[in-house]
Amino acid sequence: MRGTAVSKIKASVIGASGYGGAEVVRLLASHPHVDIVHVTAESQQGRAMSSLYPNLRHFVDQEMIAVNAERIGRESAVAFVSLPSGKAMHLVPGLLEQGCKVIDIAADFRLRDASLYPIWYKFEHKTPSFLSEAVYGLPELHRDAIAETRLLANPGCYPAASLLALAPLMRAGAIGHAGIVIDAKSGISGAGRGGGGGFGYSEVNENARAYGVAGHNHTAEIEQELSGLAGRAVQVVFTPHLIPMTRGILATTYATLAGDLDQEEALSLYDDYYAEAPFMRVLHDALPETKATLGSNFCDVTVRVDARTRTAIAIAAIDNLGRGAAGQAIQNMNLMCDLPESAGLLFPALYP
Amino acid sequence: MRGTAVSKIKASVIGASGYGGAEVVRLLASHPHVDIVHVTAESQQGRAMSSLYPNLRHFVDQEMIAVNAERIGRESAVAFVSLPSGKAMHLVPGLLEQGCKVIDIAADFRLRDASLYPIWYKFEHKTPSFLSEAVYGLPELHRDAIAETRLLANPGCYPAASLLALAPLMRAGAIGHAGIVIDAKSGISGAGRGGGGGFGYSEVNENARAYGVAGHNHTAEIEQELSGLAGRAVQVVFTPHLIPMTRGILATTYATLAGDLDQEEALSLYDDYYAEAPFMRVLHDALPETKATLGSNFCDVTVRVDARTRTAIAIAAIDNLGRGAAGQAIQNMNLMCDLPESAGLLFPALYP
Amino acid sequence: MRGTAVSKIKASVIGASGYGGAEVVRLLASHPHVDIVHVTAESQQGRAMSSLYPNLRHFVDQEMIAVNAERIGRESAVAFVSLPSGKAMHLVPGLLEQGCKVIDIAADFRLRDASLYPIWYKFEHKTPSFLSEAVYGLPELHRDAIAETRLLANPGCYPAASLLALAPLMRAGAIGHAGIVIDAKSGISGAGRGGGGGFGYSEVNENARAYGVAGHNHTAEIEQELSGLAGRAVQVVFTPHLIPMTRGILATTYATLAGDLDQEEALSLYDDYYAEAPFMRVLHDALPETKATLGSNFCDVTVRVDARTRTAIAIAAIDNLGRGAAGQAIQNMNLMCDLPESAGLLFPALYP
Amino acid sequence: MRGTAVSKIKASVIGASGYGGAEVVRLLASHPHVDIVHVTAESQQGRAMSSLYPNLRHFVDQEMIAVNAERIGRESAVAFVSLPSGKAMHLVPGLLEQGCKVIDIAADFRLRDASLYPIWYKFEHKTPSFLSEAVYGLPELHRDAIAETRLLANPGCYPAASLLALAPLMRAGAIGHAGIVIDAKSGISGAGRGGGGGFGYSEVNENARAYGVAGHNHTAEIEQELSGLAGRAVQVVFTPHLIPMTRGILATTYATLAGDLDQEEALSLYDDYYAEAPFMRVLHDALPETKATLGSNFCDVTVRVDARTRTAIAIAAIDNLGRGAAGQAIQNMNLMCDLPESAGLLFPALYP
Repeated sequence: MRGTAVSKIKASVIGASGYGGAEVVRLLASHPHVDIVHVTAESQQGRAMSSLYPNLRHFVDQEMIAVNAERIGRESAVAFVSLPSGKAMHLVPGLLEQGCKVIDIAADFRLRDASLYPIWYKFEHKTPSFLSEAVYGLPELHRDAIAETRLLANPGCYPAASLLALAPLMRAGAIGHAGIVIDAKSGISGAGRGGGGGFGYSEVNENARAYGVAGHNHTAEIEQELSGLAGRAVQVVFTPHLIPMTRGILATTYATLAGDLDQEEALSLYDDYYAEAPFMRVLHDALPETKATLGSNFCDVTVRVDARTRTAIAIAAIDNLGRGAAGQAIQNMNLMCDLPESAGLLFPALYP
Repeated sequence: MRGTAVSKIKASVIGASGYGGAEVVRLLASHPHVDIVHVTAESQQGRAMSSLYPNLRHFVDQEMIAVNAERIGRESAVAFVSLPSGKAMHLVPGLLEQGCKVIDIAADFRLRDASLYPIWYKFEHKTPSFLSEAVYGLPELHRDAIAETRLLANPGCYPAASLLALAPLMRAGAIGHAGIVIDAKSGISGAGRGGGGGFGYSEVNENARAYGVAGHNHTAEIEQELSGLAGRAVQVVFTPHLIPMTRGILATTYATLAGDLDQEEALSLYDDYYAEAPFMRVLHDALPETKATLGSNFCDVTVRVDARTRTAIAIAAIDNLGRGAAGQAIQNMNLMCDLPESAGLLFPALYP
Repeated sequence: MRGTAVSKIKASVIGASGYGGAEVVRLLASHPHVDIVHVTAESQQGRAMSSLYPNLRHFVDQEMIAVNAERIGRESAVAFVSLPSGKAMHLVPGLLEQGCKVIDIAADFRLRDASLYPIWYKFEHKTPSFLSEAVYGLPELHRDAIAETRLLANPGCYPAASLLALAPLMRAGAIGHAGIVIDAKSGISGAGRGGGGGFGYSEVNENARAYGVAGHNHTAEIEQELSGLAGRAVQVVFTPHLIPMTRGILATTYATLAGDLDQEEALSLYDDYYAEAPFMRVLHDALPETKATLGSNFCDVTVRVDARTRTAIAIAAIDNLGRGAAGQAIQNMNLMCDLPESAGLLFPALYP
Repeated sequence: MRGTAVSKIKASVIGASGYGGAEVVRLLASHPHVDIVHVTAESQQGRAMSSLYPNLRHFVDQEMIAVNAERIGRESAVAFVSLPSGKAMHLVPGLLEQGCKVIDIAADFRLRDASLYPIWYKFEHKTPSFLSEAVYGLPELHRDAIAETRLLANPGCYPAASLLALAPLMRAGAIGHAGIVIDAKSGISGAGRGGGGGFGYSEVNENARAYGVAGHNHTAEIEQELSGLAGRAVQVVFTPHLIPMTRGILATTYATLAGDLDQEEALSLYDDYYAEAPFMRVLHDALPETKATLGSNFCDVTVRVDARTRTAIAIAAIDNLGRGAAGQAIQNMNLMCDLPESAGLLFPALYP
């Protein structure tokens, strides 16, 4: 349904059958500066993309193929890799070798310290030499480096929300380096399309529960980036929850104030920190709600100072498949490919 | 967030605080050829559009104003009127007088026979002289007339789905003119933002029920248009239902076969009838599901022939706020304003 | 948590890990006249019932065991069999031989004509000699026979709702024998705990779709029982739909009037027909809604006469796991075991 | 549908049209030792209880009447008062004067310190002399006092979950007295039947958001009761959230360890503290999920020790209308009226 122009960027999506990969495909399908070259899915080879994702009928009817890093790298200017963590690290060298830029949506290149992978992800990193050149793709923290890199580590969905909630406070030294609590609530699509036995509708609907208590692997990248902002080691308690909705993450974060900070000053930190960010909306008079970001790349954020307990409560809302995965990945692609940062992403969320 | 170009079409939305009007605003906000001039809402005057619809923050932060037909008509090339039925008929003359094209999203100009209003809508039509020039805005039935009119009656959400399901069969004379059953299932947003006492989350969630049995006012326009297709009077039994989802209509329709028709022939009727329709997707191997249209202007449709009972079962899925209201209205605007039919609407639904 | 009394009825549940079987266990756990002896589940042997169904913690913590028809039949006065259709027919002879009464929740003994199994269920019946003694367990149609039988065929969820909607009209000869349309909407739990790939939360949520169009196997028992009521062959078009809720079936049925029948007369037929039925509620001024039956054994039903089109529209609401499966099974057990018909079932639904 | 026996306790429900009051009525309707005398609702006088709550058809078809404390007190042995906070304080003296025991489901008698009402509830207490005799109705903390009182203050829904999560740790001195974070997620029924403009299905569905940040009035009773357990002043940060489900509260609580405590020791504290509590289930190998308590009076609770950050994470799940309101009220009634503590409440939750 979309025409091909010589000047368009050729993009491929490896792992297009999962929710994250399919959302990249959805966004690319209406991106004005991109042509989709290949979509891959090991388990669905030969099946039309649109038979699995019926929203893509008439947009992306091409067949999903098997992964071939050499061919995809050669025929694509940029490749999105959306596979379970531990897979991309094997493919990335082959893609880069062909001159293809890589955006990894999993965790394989998020942690700069290779020794953290066995601890948090239970695997040894097989291509650790690439960790030093990979850039953590949160533009509000690393915009310039993103524009220069060929290997981008797209943030996890929880870290995206958590970091965008806490960054202005941490950068300003307004909160302590320990005792930080991040309580995050996610829609079920975060569990992925496979999902497995525990994500049938009837058991997930009308249900709320925590999981991964005191051990979720996203803790590592949250601490890495907060430590970078603070200039010293930061520790957090991070608890994810599943709640009965398809999309959305709400991260409610709690931190003890390091010194005096009133409500107005706190909001000013956010206004300033996000002054140039096209997808950040700092709320003064309202609280973030996930639905305001549904299907979009926006992050709504605010902070409230509880003077009584000397606590800052910062809250961020995103779409876990948007700002938490595919939308963020497109924003990063735009920066890496010298396109306008918001190209193909500047539309409002669905509401209601 | 959007620039103003001299060549853009100036559009206003009267009744922007309701779900239908707000969805028009959402779609206009990222339409490449339109500038939003005014948004009105009697009950919300002075309030920012984006404080009521937080998805529109940074897009449409302007205040909602009171309705002033003369001013809005003068300053707008096209006005969308999204008010409860019985209100637009008072405003339309004033808008047209200023040279403004009008797209009425309510029922005020859908029925050509003024005497039907007291029967189905319980009000007398006050400006019946405009009924003859109004065009019923289903492009698949009336594309040429839509392009010529200054007064467009946007179809009801249920009729849009029902007519798109049945039109190919009825036009071909493949089904009878009586005994047609239309059983439609709608998301709750169809009840509107106000909604009233019966639409609180806790009572609507995990609940399904029929309403308006044997008397819903959409019956009138369904019969009018089916009769037009058949060239003789057609009668239907139409039963709407509310089911626990926000958006979407699934219309399951049943009609007795008029003669011999096998499965393959039936699908061919649909393929042919919708060959030129950019937002129709005729499914051969799958059944329509509402989620495949979520947030979009697409209509997915299919037909199954039950040879055992000599019945055609035609099914259509739409987003009630998309193809069933605002998306359809934008498509009609495009036709009326000589823009590409799919301008601003060619993006896939959200899935999952 | 529940004591054992000599006089209590010993009951076992074969196939306790599925939703239907687990709901039988839930109801038995607070039934005043029953002790649970065995719960079986091939795939979950050795696992505590309450680890799979956390609502049963402290109630039924015993382990699920493998099926052994001889032992279960010997140690139980009544056995509920809740397995995929085609399995119970192999177990039932062994259970009956031990003097154990059997309530089959699947379809194996619902159809009196063995030749219908290959057509509608795609398997040959292996123990057809038992079909003649099996009683179809809808008490409103067969109360006396139920009380006498040792082999009960519990109705399907859709047939339960559909038959309770149409029975008074059909018995009275008020409607025709062809052209009957049954459009049913079901919660997702009807797809079972396994469910398979298509029932992940994210794809089912905010989605509505038909399935099994013109071929669902429940058609057979609906036609069998309606034919019995009419005294001649009756044919129906039955279309099931999945809608995003966990429990509940709403069956909207359409039938052409056979003669004169006004609204008041129609409701009288229902009042009379269900005068002695403890779990039927005939609504005069309201329409059935599934939530009013959530978790209970009640069926809410009404009829509306559309004089304009000479159509009767009868609507029934049930909980598919209650009146549509486990609740109905307990009611049948009560009748078969000479207990009060409503023992253990006389509690209101959950609302909201 | 239920018989009247001389020995049954006569109970009335003031404010029966709200969700909390209606749930009391639902539970009383199948309570073996209670007869319902009056149900009141100012705004619904003369309307049948079952026309508002269709689940109660055939159970409680009596009309709702206006409140008359003198008459209700005289004719009832126990009265449940389920009105917005600030109303019960005017009625209670009149009820008690008639010898009627009172269970207030709102906040009017929860706080022992009258000066806290203007701060947290924005009203002056008008009958503060009753505060000293009122007993806070959490049986695990105050079982003996509950059995002796004539005036019971039923806990708030959030405090019920929060206190049951934290009590064993606080009583044992295992956690600090400051820096406690309580992050609670509630179903929408917590907002009440009225709910107001913000609780329409379409806006609440697929949405998550915090509210009452740093100022929710339930903070006061949480701190009061934790302080009682600690023997010194305790301060908490409490943030409630609304998530898209009808019922259920999940409270995730975070507290810094006061000394050494390993995972096994922590669970032992819970096992011991709740050894005699019939509605507490301490989970060792699983995490609480709200659905396991749906419609019931159970509270599932666990604790996890994060040695890395020296934090205890305690989690509790309840049904906000069950253990969080009406179920708890019935349990308290049982204790106050010398009935078995679990009478009328010993049934499993609905699952799925």
